[in-house]
Amino acid sequence: MTSSPTRTQVGIVGAGPAGLLLSHLLHLRGISSVVLERRSRAYVEQRVRAGVLEQGTVDTLVAAGVGERLRREGLPHHGIELRYDGRGRRIAFEELVPGRAITVYGQQEVVKDLIAARLEAGGDIRFGVEDVALHDLEGEPYLTFDGGRLDCDVIAGCDGFHGVSRPSVPEGVLTLHEREYPFAWLGVLARVAPSSEELIYSRTERGFALHSMRTPEISRFYLQVPPDATPEEWPDERVWAELRARLETVPGFTLATGEILEKSVTPMRGFVAEPMQYGRLFLAGDAAHIVPPTGAKGLNLAVADVRVLAEALDRFFATGSADLLDGYSRACLGRVWRAQHFSWWMTTLLHTFDSDDAYGRRLQVSHLDYVTSSRAAATTLAENYVGLS
Amino acid sequence: MTSSPTRTQVGIVGAGPAGLLLSHLLHLRGISSVVLERRSRAYVEQRVRAGVLEQGTVDTLVAAGVGERLRREGLPHHGIELRYDGRGRRIAFEELVPGRAITVYGQQEVVKDLIAARLEAGGDIRFGVEDVALHDLEGEPYLTFDGGRLDCDVIAGCDGFHGVSRPSVPEGVLTLHEREYPFAWLGVLARVAPSSEELIYSRTERGFALHSMRTPEISRFYLQVPPDATPEEWPDERVWAELRARLETVPGFTLATGEILEKSVTPMRGFVAEPMQYGRLFLAGDAAHIVPPTGAKGLNLAVADVRVLAEALDRFFATGSADLLDGYSRACLGRVWRAQHFSWWMTTLLHTFDSDDAYGRRLQVSHLDYVTSSRAAATTLAENYVGLS
Repeated sequence: MTSSPTRTQVGIVGAGPAGLLLSHLLHLRGISSVVLERRSRAYVEQRVRAGVLEQGTVDTLVAAGVGERLRREGLPHHGIELRYDGRGRRIAFEELVPGRAITVYGQQEVVKDLIAARLEAGGDIRFGVEDVALHDLEGEPYLTFDGGRLDCDVIAGCDGFHGVSRPSVPEGVLTLHEREYPFAWLGVLARVAPSSEELIYSRTERGFALHSMRTPEISRFYLQVPPDATPEEWPDERVWAELRARLETVPGFTLATGEILEKSVTPMRGFVAEPMQYGRLFLAGDAAHIVPPTGAKGLNLAVADVRVLAEALDRFFATGSADLLDGYSRACLGRVWRAQHFSWWMTTLLHTFDSDDAYGRRLQVSHLDYVTSSRAAATTLAENYVGLS
Repeated sequence: MTSSPTRTQVGIVGAGPAGLLLSHLLHLRGISSVVLERRSRAYVEQRVRAGVLEQGTVDTLVAAGVGERLRREGLPHHGIELRYDGRGRRIAFEELVPGRAITVYGQQEVVKDLIAARLEAGGDIRFGVEDVALHDLEGEPYLTFDGGRLDCDVIAGCDGFHGVSRPSVPEGVLTLHEREYPFAWLGVLARVAPSSEELIYSRTERGFALHSMRTPEISRFYLQVPPDATPEEWPDERVWAELRARLETVPGFTLATGEILEKSVTPMRGFVAEPMQYGRLFLAGDAAHIVPPTGAKGLNLAVADVRVLAEALDRFFATGSADLLDGYSRACLGRVWRAQHFSWWMTTLLHTFDSDDAYGRRLQVSHLDYVTSSRAAATTLAENYVGLS
């Protein structure tokens, strides 16, 4: 590492989609950056995460020249199904929000594409970097790590909810808003062709299930489980039995099964740190906010943050004006809170809550009846799902 | 009372809007009824209750020939204001749900009009009747009361949430769904011209307030208060101070004050009894279901029930077929649960909850931002408020 530069314009902590896309967008604007990542390249390229891209996210990636494989392999979807009470009803994007759709494409594929683009352009991504620490955020910021130091004009904290960036802000500066849900999601990746062309969000008295997919050969499933559930409690037969019980709830639908490739439990949490900046540190993506995955908003929010931040940094380095940088958090938070609300809304619409009595369950079904029968209500779901601009 | 008939086709318990309108609609179809009411005529004609009529309610009253004064004195409204976070934003019905509006006209005025119409037509309404009891609901039903007995083909229970009709159904027949809210409304009637032409629903950190009206000279206000609040705890100066604090939250708005005519505390509750019928007994209005008043749905639901019931009784007496009667509850409950959900939605959108942390409050403001900026979301409010058909 001794030959690596010890100074860059933007020090980026974390090589997830936020950090990598930021580095790439800065590169396109002639701004130098170095990305420090604790994990190995293989790890981040295989980490299974989100897979639903909003139109605006696709547009950003394509415009940045990293959308070629996405356009080739991504699966455009023009609707989703809400399944409940023995029936399935489609929310038809093409009718409700004409010209806008989502694209199914795994987050790790986005990560692969971005790493390839950065490396091809001679980008500086350092994997397996331990003990990253942030310093002098209000003055002349720099990063230290096992065996090195990196001086920067600005630091971008893109290292996720558990990363070091947010805790580096002095106590009392950030206001932390948090909501924990009394359940988690068991995520399952399986080698089997999807049993439906579109995503199925299924509400049952046994709990929520989501039928999704990654490719025409790989299906992705989620099951609402207790918050302390472990993958070990869910042997493959139990997973399939429960998925069948929660998805085979309408006449004629049969769930195809196959080899399970991966299982993991994701806690369900809403979280926002405000403001998303401190001195020369700017937080983006999960480092600043978390949503429960029901609305598929996490990755899309990260991309939206980075879009704003790249623009602000461009102006800062081009003109010396910090006005956009100063307004970064304010520019992001409207969308962030909209996504928090939508994710909460989708979550409460579809999950069972132990605290719910018969009244609450009937209210939920009445709500689903309304969302699937009123054009206005269906449009609120559709416009949030494909992404409000 | 000895000269009063001891037999009628439909015995109606309760002379609120539901019982009176039913009696009137049956009269128009040539079906006899007797209304038994525990209170005096003066009491029911002065009881201050709801005041927002949906288009369908107005249409029903006009079509039944009891809408003349309503059309003359009722105030048509084409929008409401949502006030929060230092701004007021209008939900414009004329734009979102063209051709549909609400009419502000006090429930007691509807009651007066119906009583006048019934008496003019020689209708049999008995006020001040004590100890009403329902009998033989699965066989040959009859009503007893202090000093009398009334045999009927059918009984309509229109005597409200606390009436005797619903508890007359044997235990175990009805499923009761209930939700209590951790607050109540203090309702205030004041002799002062409204300070706004349209209703103002105001959300503040101090709690919710509603600015409404009854006539161009009489204003109606509501304040969110603790569930155990009493009118005695709210002397006039405190009422006005709190109304000002919760309503004077936008530049240029001043609340006009005046003589307070009436104060009362209403609990906030959602409640549904299913089915809304048993044998020859049919429940309508508050006897079967209660909504928190936020969405102004209580009176309108009662009118909708009665419309369905009058139709079903007409068919029953004209043809002997009980098919519509048998389907009465099913025909009503879709609307009933829609109103439950909408009322819950409006209530949670606008009230402060002790259980809400900073996250919950930000979610609420984000929700209000969305409802007042997305056409689809504003339409969901508007279409429910003016009444889904």
